[in-house]
Amino acid sequence: MALIVQKYGGSSVADSEKIKNVARRVAKAKDEGSQVVVVVSAMGDTTDDLLKLAYQISEQPSDREFDILLSTGEIVSSTLLAMALGSLGYKAISLSGAQAGIHTDSSYSRARILRVDTKRVVSELRKGNIVIVAGFQGVTGKRDITTLGRGGSDTTAVALAVSLGAEICQIYTDVEGVYTADPRLVPQAKKLKEIGYEEMLELATYGARVMHNRAVELGWLYNVPILVASSFSDSPGTTICKEASMEVKNKVRGIAHDTNVAKVTVVGVSDHPGIAAAIFEPLARANISIDTIVQNASINNITDLTFTVARSDLLKAMSIVEPVVKSVGGKQCVTDSTLAKVSIVGTGMQNTPGYAARMFRALYEHGINIQLITTAEIRITCIISEDRVTDAVRALHQAFELEKET
Amino acid sequence: MALIVQKYGGSSVADSEKIKNVARRVAKAKDEGSQVVVVVSAMGDTTDDLLKLAYQISEQPSDREFDILLSTGEIVSSTLLAMALGSLGYKAISLSGAQAGIHTDSSYSRARILRVDTKRVVSELRKGNIVIVAGFQGVTGKRDITTLGRGGSDTTAVALAVSLGAEICQIYTDVEGVYTADPRLVPQAKKLKEIGYEEMLELATYGARVMHNRAVELGWLYNVPILVASSFSDSPGTTICKEASMEVKNKVRGIAHDTNVAKVTVVGVSDHPGIAAAIFEPLARANISIDTIVQNASINNITDLTFTVARSDLLKAMSIVEPVVKSVGGKQCVTDSTLAKVSIVGTGMQNTPGYAARMFRALYEHGINIQLITTAEIRITCIISEDRVTDAVRALHQAFELEKET
Repeated sequence: MALIVQKYGGSSVADSEKIKNVARRVAKAKDEGSQVVVVVSAMGDTTDDLLKLAYQISEQPSDREFDILLSTGEIVSSTLLAMALGSLGYKAISLSGAQAGIHTDSSYSRARILRVDTKRVVSELRKGNIVIVAGFQGVTGKRDITTLGRGGSDTTAVALAVSLGAEICQIYTDVEGVYTADPRLVPQAKKLKEIGYEEMLELATYGARVMHNRAVELGWLYNVPILVASSFSDSPGTTICKEASMEVKNKVRGIAHDTNVAKVTVVGVSDHPGIAAAIFEPLARANISIDTIVQNASINNITDLTFTVARSDLLKAMSIVEPVVKSVGGKQCVTDSTLAKVSIVGTGMQNTPGYAARMFRALYEHGINIQLITTAEIRITCIISEDRVTDAVRALHQAFELEKET
Repeated sequence: MALIVQKYGGSSVADSEKIKNVARRVAKAKDEGSQVVVVVSAMGDTTDDLLKLAYQISEQPSDREFDILLSTGEIVSSTLLAMALGSLGYKAISLSGAQAGIHTDSSYSRARILRVDTKRVVSELRKGNIVIVAGFQGVTGKRDITTLGRGGSDTTAVALAVSLGAEICQIYTDVEGVYTADPRLVPQAKKLKEIGYEEMLELATYGARVMHNRAVELGWLYNVPILVASSFSDSPGTTICKEASMEVKNKVRGIAHDTNVAKVTVVGVSDHPGIAAAIFEPLARANISIDTIVQNASINNITDLTFTVARSDLLKAMSIVEPVVKSVGGKQCVTDSTLAKVSIVGTGMQNTPGYAARMFRALYEHGINIQLITTAEIRITCIISEDRVTDAVRALHQAFELEKET
């Protein structure tokens, strides 16, 4: 019998009516003859409410206690969904992450899954149960509760799909799938039927918030297809799978954008080995991701170094970089936090020249100034002024003809 | 080192400020040199909110799911209290019922504790931790979550106190202790310094809602003293212990009352063996407690049978009794749900005559009609009209001179 794993996000289980709606969708999958494992997130704002409570009580809550606290949100929604299925006449059982065998390391609040012991889930499936698993959580070797951090429930779902040999992992959320660009910016944006894992990763990293990269990477590693679709409609979603169909190859698949960008320019440092390390090592230790790095050609052995960080990390980054710059004799640090990234993504770009030129021309024709450029195998990113980001996304969407039926 | 178990009820941990207050109280006990284990209930109305959610989703939620759902309330409050202690600079760790080794049978929603495996708690105490245990919950042999039903957190606390060999189990709640009568009815009511287990049980069964009998029975069985006191004041509470001091023996200790009473009179049944069984067995199967039973002397082998049930059980009881009465040829059933019970309780009564007479006279002198009387070893109860209950409690409080310093 086919086995599918479904995951429903917080907005899909936000209240009792929505939970009943999810139960009907799960029941339908069961009626269609599949064994069904369902992973749920916490209801609506539950996690935020619990966070607020914790911070009312302590400025620095213990990591261990924090994880136990947060894990209750998914327990609540999983039991409620099991009850809702029960009242529709379906056999269902909820399992905590621990009961479902999600074994993690002990890095509280961002635990990694070490292995999934599927014994209990398999035994409940054999009894004819629909198995509801509390997402976002696991258990250490010492049986302490951990949470998986951002994208945790998606990761739980894909990990279960991998371990159970599921046919597909279906991620139901409040978006209808993956689009060629953000439909709020580009009304002509098209929903993609399929997208490759790598393309999805690049799109997500560069701004398309559909699901967390961590879960996509896991799906890619074990080659489990992931469907992203809406829990509120029957519209077909987007399948993230090994590679997009032949006919859509050789093409830009989507335009990503991200406004959480700040630029730091370190002015007048001497161009000798070790300078970059001196600046970037302490940032890495502080867990600040550096994106683009550009070093100008040096004049008289003096150069400028420019890099970008998430805007939300800027203050922390500056508090680390400024003392370092002084200590190596740099002149000053200049920051700009009014920037955005716009990217084109597609496996087609890999072996075909001309994409970069077409991108730069489209931006130029709309009078959009490019401040920095970075490229990856299947992506080209330009840093531009934030106030031009909508124009830029629209211009690129048109330039690469993404509004046409794929 | 002395070990104490403290328990804080839902109203004591209703919000973050109250949790901080509890943390300060726990810290004080730790500072005074004890090892401290704390049991907490769910915050304020959490359990009711979860119940409401469950019934929005299903009219008959699965017992297993229900228990998992409810158990999250105590997990939340236990982690928050651990965080609050952490921010005061104390080492604290929260444990779920399962982690604290509370092993129960698998009667969901009213599980009985089979044994307490104290290994983890002891090991955390040895590390210098204050151990916070989520009350009201346990775990079956199959590691499924159970809840203990009414009075569950009190029972968790006493069970831990017993198993850990604690010096005392302190139950902190929103009342200041056990009074000679309900202070809302009798302004002169005195708080008792001590009360015997048996007296407490009789008082509680007959209306003094301080803590659940189940926990008192457990304390009695293993002879663990239980302090009942307020978490909102430093006023000394009441200690429930093996026996009250010698000097307060031979006395009525308190007046209990209960307005959740209804009377059923079965008129004109034939007085032969088996009639009582025919009526009371189906009530017992329906889990309806019968309190007083009175059978009139029979005339021509025809008799009337009167019994009382909790008023909240009356409708259910009648739906069971009426068909039975018809089938055994009874004439009719008459009910009265405007009644109340008033009781005097005290071990002193056991070997001393005259208490009943004094009680009846006091009621008579206030023009209060007695409908039914029942007695137990250390208690005499009269069923009276509900609208006279305040008068009756005051009259008895005065007649037995309970307003005098004990």
